[in-house]
Amino acid sequence: MHFLIIGGSDAGISAALRAHELDPNCEITLVLADDYPNFSICGLPFFLSGQTPDWRSLAHRTEFPGIQLIPNHTAESIDPIRKAVLIRGSGETRELLYDKLLIGTGARPVRPAIEGFDLPGVFPLHTMEDSFAFHRFLEQHEPKSAIIVGAGYIGLEMADALVHRGLKVTVASRTETILATVDSSFGGRVEAELKSHGVEVCNRVEARSIGRDGDSLVVVGSQDFLATADLVLVAVGVRPNSELGFTAGVTTGIKGALCVDRLMQTNVPDIYAAGDCVETWHRLLNGYTYLPLGTTSHKQGRTAAENVLGGNREFAGSLGTQVVKIFDLVAARTGLRDTEARGAGFCPVTVEKTFWDHKAYYPGARELHIRITGDCHTGQLLGAQLLGHTDSEVSKRIDIFAAALFHEMNIESLNDLDLSYTPPLSSPWDPVQMGAQAWLNETSRVEQMAHECH
Amino acid sequence: MHFLIIGGSDAGISAALRAHELDPNCEITLVLADDYPNFSICGLPFFLSGQTPDWRSLAHRTEFPGIQLIPNHTAESIDPIRKAVLIRGSGETRELLYDKLLIGTGARPVRPAIEGFDLPGVFPLHTMEDSFAFHRFLEQHEPKSAIIVGAGYIGLEMADALVHRGLKVTVASRTETILATVDSSFGGRVEAELKSHGVEVCNRVEARSIGRDGDSLVVVGSQDFLATADLVLVAVGVRPNSELGFTAGVTTGIKGALCVDRLMQTNVPDIYAAGDCVETWHRLLNGYTYLPLGTTSHKQGRTAAENVLGGNREFAGSLGTQVVKIFDLVAARTGLRDTEARGAGFCPVTVEKTFWDHKAYYPGARELHIRITGDCHTGQLLGAQLLGHTDSEVSKRIDIFAAALFHEMNIESLNDLDLSYTPPLSSPWDPVQMGAQAWLNETSRVEQMAHECH
Repeated sequence: MHFLIIGGSDAGISAALRAHELDPNCEITLVLADDYPNFSICGLPFFLSGQTPDWRSLAHRTEFPGIQLIPNHTAESIDPIRKAVLIRGSGETRELLYDKLLIGTGARPVRPAIEGFDLPGVFPLHTMEDSFAFHRFLEQHEPKSAIIVGAGYIGLEMADALVHRGLKVTVASRTETILATVDSSFGGRVEAELKSHGVEVCNRVEARSIGRDGDSLVVVGSQDFLATADLVLVAVGVRPNSELGFTAGVTTGIKGALCVDRLMQTNVPDIYAAGDCVETWHRLLNGYTYLPLGTTSHKQGRTAAENVLGGNREFAGSLGTQVVKIFDLVAARTGLRDTEARGAGFCPVTVEKTFWDHKAYYPGARELHIRITGDCHTGQLLGAQLLGHTDSEVSKRIDIFAAALFHEMNIESLNDLDLSYTPPLSSPWDPVQMGAQAWLNETSRVEQMAHECH
Repeated sequence: MHFLIIGGSDAGISAALRAHELDPNCEITLVLADDYPNFSICGLPFFLSGQTPDWRSLAHRTEFPGIQLIPNHTAESIDPIRKAVLIRGSGETRELLYDKLLIGTGARPVRPAIEGFDLPGVFPLHTMEDSFAFHRFLEQHEPKSAIIVGAGYIGLEMADALVHRGLKVTVASRTETILATVDSSFGGRVEAELKSHGVEVCNRVEARSIGRDGDSLVVVGSQDFLATADLVLVAVGVRPNSELGFTAGVTTGIKGALCVDRLMQTNVPDIYAAGDCVETWHRLLNGYTYLPLGTTSHKQGRTAAENVLGGNREFAGSLGTQVVKIFDLVAARTGLRDTEARGAGFCPVTVEKTFWDHKAYYPGARELHIRITGDCHTGQLLGAQLLGHTDSEVSKRIDIFAAALFHEMNIESLNDLDLSYTPPLSSPWDPVQMGAQAWLNETSRVEQMAHECH
């Protein structure tokens, strides 16, 4: 059995490792476009900040037992009838036959319609090569200032990273508040954190052009935005790299991502797909969405491999669990926000409260902000957002919500969870549960008021 | 409706607050033995260490809306026919009538058969009064050294606390390794942490007598144990304070704890009981045990109140989730350990692995030790233990396991949980999931070996 995998990042490598684990006799070939199998793309900001001095340490792993790697090759086309893939490297092409194929071609940065995007000193950030180019520029030109177009995870992590390197940073965000993956009250708090570290933040700015002014770059945008700096980073999201699959006859859907069933099979026999190039099953939406995340890619790759080897395992679905650290602040979310929940037919209510992360009498207690979204008819938990200090176990607290969402718990039953407590780390009711109680009290009060009005 | 509550700690106060929340017209009276309603007993070590300078800040709350508190009174007897409780305070007695009664009399320290337990300078630590006596001794006598008999949570937190105050500390542990609530490999690591802070640890020591030698106290025990110090703390666990209920006809069970059903009702009509004085329903054992924990007391009190007010809510059960911080180390557990699981009819296998708490390329990565116990026939998750640095989100990582255990997940499906990831805080597969994968690989290897042998 020859299992051919196109793509050497999370989905592809995860599939290859799992296939080898399940059947050491399976012949596994993995074709990757560059020379960096399974490097941590999420780690690029820390390489560029200087916190991770050696880019080699970004490799999730350096040994790939039982897997034949073909680096620096891209797949040009798939012939699903002959079950063959044409690959190209160093100008040469050759054909590989497969029994089962996995497409894990990932995503590429959205290239916005901004004039001057190709000027020297303007960078995207998605691949190792991108980060090498960026790094060379930092080393050679020693820029003193940067403009970051885009205020999502990469944009804000890079703001942190470049401040860490001593640059003056301006962030131009298209949205009302930065970090649009969380609600605006949290976005506002993240903005305050950035400002307290000297970052200038401009909201509701549509960047229109980048130009040169002597040695400097000038970014012009809506809202009279005009900023000058020594470099510009454009990080406005990604879109699926789905052309290879599409031309082979794989159906595409949201944002052009490849369609797969929950076994990670495409509509083309013996072709599977996983990772940032596919539509993702969402466990709460009970349908597909486009949600490119490394955690999901790993799970999808693992799932695909099990089915390639004759299993019958469904991808359990994403909840959109995400976390980001920006300076000393951690913002996390899981599940649905109000608008998403309403779109999916729920009747969402969101309640925000602030609690101490542990008993206030023990030194170092910090405020932890919790937003819980639940259905006002059924009391079902729909989503949660958390914001707090890096010491406040924000990321693993969101995971308690993620585990609860996985099991479709209602908010009342969060109180039944037997969570750990010691005064330096929590309260007898964990903030997760105090948040649940606040949601219940708030909604029962609203219910009562509605009742009294009628 | 008069709801009478005996006991002013977690169970009693939690019940009172919930009753008032559900029905502001409910008449609620709470009788407590001292003047410290709902003080955080778990916080006593931090008051004694000096980290929490003002004992008043140990109050979980200071306002009790809708609750009539009767402090400094103890309940002497219950007449369940007349539905009356005789209480005594300042030498006077009086009778209170009830419609529904909750017994929340808690636990008291086990008084071991050690000669000299009553000598000045020898202390238990369970109540506010205990801690005031201890504190006075610290202030007046400025002891330079301490012997702690008992190596459970209180004993070890007090070792930390007294080192924090500058004392030389010796711990005498009866068990093979300290902190017997976790497996011995973890106990050994906690011992190393204590030793690195100058604490002397002696295992397998049965303390036999405490005597005076001039101004010093001398503790003698098995294994030729002989130690001298300026003070002695005896913390060898607690037992239920169940006499009040017992004499009123409430059935008692394990360790003499009051028997309750899952609605927190005793066998005596209109008498409920909750907290450290009752047997606790264990969700995995599917039966009762004695597991006195503040988190559980809160849940049981809340549950009792809902049923007192006409609800029909079952206590969901404990998983024995516990966490303790000792110096820079956090040890946590949830669910069953090998011996407990075997006793309950499971076929447990425990696998221990060590992972980085976050991507090693990001500064500050630390080792996180994970022990997972699962059933080797069904793959069901039975329990988990975690040990790591205070920065490693140990306590909320154990809660992911707790949430999984609550839903009777199998170990394989832990991989389906959509947990959060960013390089400074985790890995694409969280250590929780890497632990699950290690357990699966280990047990499938063992299975294969067994298969090959036959």
